[in-house]
Amino acid sequence: MKKERTLEQKFQVSFQFKVLFTHQIFDVDNTILHKLLSENAMNTSKALVVVDSGVKDAHPTLLPAIENYFDNFGKSIALQGDILEIPGGEAAKNDEALIKSILDKVNRFGIDRHSYIIAIGGGAVLDAVGFAAAIAHRGVRHIRIPTTVLSQNDSGIGVKNGINSYGKKNFTGCFASPYAVINDATFLTTLDDRDWRSGIAEAIKVALIMDLDFFEWIETEADALANRNMEVMDELIYRCADLHMQHIRTSGDAFEQGSSRPLDFGHWAAHKLEQLSHFSLRHGEAVAIGIALDSTYSQLKGYLNQPSLYRILNLMTTLGFELHHPELNDQVIQGLEEFREHLGGQLTIMLLNAIGKGFEVHEMDEELVLEAMNYVQQYSAQKIEM
Amino acid sequence: MKKERTLEQKFQVSFQFKVLFTHQIFDVDNTILHKLLSENAMNTSKALVVVDSGVKDAHPTLLPAIENYFDNFGKSIALQGDILEIPGGEAAKNDEALIKSILDKVNRFGIDRHSYIIAIGGGAVLDAVGFAAAIAHRGVRHIRIPTTVLSQNDSGIGVKNGINSYGKKNFTGCFASPYAVINDATFLTTLDDRDWRSGIAEAIKVALIMDLDFFEWIETEADALANRNMEVMDELIYRCADLHMQHIRTSGDAFEQGSSRPLDFGHWAAHKLEQLSHFSLRHGEAVAIGIALDSTYSQLKGYLNQPSLYRILNLMTTLGFELHHPELNDQVIQGLEEFREHLGGQLTIMLLNAIGKGFEVHEMDEELVLEAMNYVQQYSAQKIEM
Repeated sequence: MKKERTLEQKFQVSFQFKVLFTHQIFDVDNTILHKLLSENAMNTSKALVVVDSGVKDAHPTLLPAIENYFDNFGKSIALQGDILEIPGGEAAKNDEALIKSILDKVNRFGIDRHSYIIAIGGGAVLDAVGFAAAIAHRGVRHIRIPTTVLSQNDSGIGVKNGINSYGKKNFTGCFASPYAVINDATFLTTLDDRDWRSGIAEAIKVALIMDLDFFEWIETEADALANRNMEVMDELIYRCADLHMQHIRTSGDAFEQGSSRPLDFGHWAAHKLEQLSHFSLRHGEAVAIGIALDSTYSQLKGYLNQPSLYRILNLMTTLGFELHHPELNDQVIQGLEEFREHLGGQLTIMLLNAIGKGFEVHEMDEELVLEAMNYVQQYSAQKIEM
Repeated sequence: MKKERTLEQKFQVSFQFKVLFTHQIFDVDNTILHKLLSENAMNTSKALVVVDSGVKDAHPTLLPAIENYFDNFGKSIALQGDILEIPGGEAAKNDEALIKSILDKVNRFGIDRHSYIIAIGGGAVLDAVGFAAAIAHRGVRHIRIPTTVLSQNDSGIGVKNGINSYGKKNFTGCFASPYAVINDATFLTTLDDRDWRSGIAEAIKVALIMDLDFFEWIETEADALANRNMEVMDELIYRCADLHMQHIRTSGDAFEQGSSRPLDFGHWAAHKLEQLSHFSLRHGEAVAIGIALDSTYSQLKGYLNQPSLYRILNLMTTLGFELHHPELNDQVIQGLEEFREHLGGQLTIMLLNAIGKGFEVHEMDEELVLEAMNYVQQYSAQKIEM
């Protein structure tokens, strides 16, 4: 009777979505969203819409435009209830009640797995709404309309969602593919300079770890980017999104079951700095400091040559990034353990061999990290001659 | 400047896990769990353990045995905090605070993605704990130890988790693969007759839709099953689990992005009956009635021949299933729309062409469903001669 047996299960799940680049998405002449919502639908497609209150404030005609858009295509698509406004930035991820308010609407309007939850906003709003969409009926179709550089070129086009709990970033969340992403450049025109700049850090990051050509292109276009040239920004976002998506596609570990996380170059310190600054630092601003820190560490450790380090630090300075921060001190070191804990398993940190060539290490010399911090602070205070 | 462009994302995620069949899992001579927890670990593996209070009551030595097991292998595996007890049955899924209590422990004990959350209990407990494990750090390794026939042969070996919200079954949840499942036959010895029998309904279901041989084997062994023959039950669970796993593996839609749900044969009525009976009906008991109903409907509609219908109804009667229920009336019809809504898209119902051959339809004749209900009630009251 003591028969020991084993059944082996092994299967693959396919995920597929488009990232569409457009302008003026809620202009009735722009049929991209309508096509997305009505393709393959047997009946009228129901959609809940959630908007970042910061985006609404910057675009006072947005809500009426959305309503008008749905009215215009009224036979095939139907807006369900009022457009829900939620606060932008980390506030969206710090309040679990917002998840409940979205689930309430899913229940009330009979939103099913073939209905849509559309989120319009920055990365934090997309993360929170995406989580609600992922857990309602085990996954309602989720369309993301990212409105910041950062969310259009990085967080909005990925497969993560989540909220903050216990004071820890992304403590609660899951992996889920969006149904589609629509990058509307119109939203970028009203960003303040900090939000415009902030997202460029993720482009530098992905260039540094995998694409020298892209890094050199950013160097060439740095002044244009600093001067808010829209065409150049369009191109930056497209190339950055493309690289992020390539990485997710080819990594073999889109849902991060292993410990490796190459796209998180510079992020262990960035996450901690955001927290220590009580989120007064934008994510991209913190990432810029994190990149400066880990690039400097790479140089001090002998992996990266000094001219390359200077190019990296100079590029960020040209773009207007502030590489100094009062919280950049030994407390940040705790970020290493918190980063390991969130990923689980072995500490795995991406460093640079060269511009465009990242590689992973499994331990960090804390003394040298402190030295790198000091170096970045001095560089930033222009005490280092180049 | 109005450049419209598209990036296409497409990738696959691989999932893999073992279902291990054993006895006396917490006997220190049984190293299955220890091996699972310590394989690939760099350091001591941390584990939270959550136990169904009903299982604990039926096995008074279970908690000390678990503690002893961890102590015995104390170098490589470490139990974190007290074993958490949660109520069994739907109560586990009706109280969101239980999810929070698990997340609290994840936070408190620094459980990371490479740590373990072990759930021991019936399907409802596994569903609730599995949901907490899936959303903590976007997925902590989750080991399921199902303790009922139903969870060992069906729900525990699948990829769904979730809790009930707004009075709706599984309203909130997600798809996630367990890290491993351990089916310990020891737990079946203390099941009451209702729980012993109830899970057999899922075996009949999977046999009816895909495996005539298995159906005939159940017919042959029906008396032995009714008399609680353990060896026969072992075999039933193994074959049923194997068929469910085969289906998930080969369906091409393990995360149910489409509308088809063949493994839910008989379930549209079952879900509604559970709800109407305020969960006084066990899931498997309700599934037995749902199978009787949809088999009868298949016969009335001309898809299934009458001798086959009699074999199905007789088998369930031999096993002791009660096919009559006071709530089996026109209210159940609402279950069709609720079932469609949960799946989304088009109504898709599995019916039978023959024993072992299911096929799908997209509409149900409500008059005929009522007629089928009446037939099942009469059969059950032995008013139908066979």
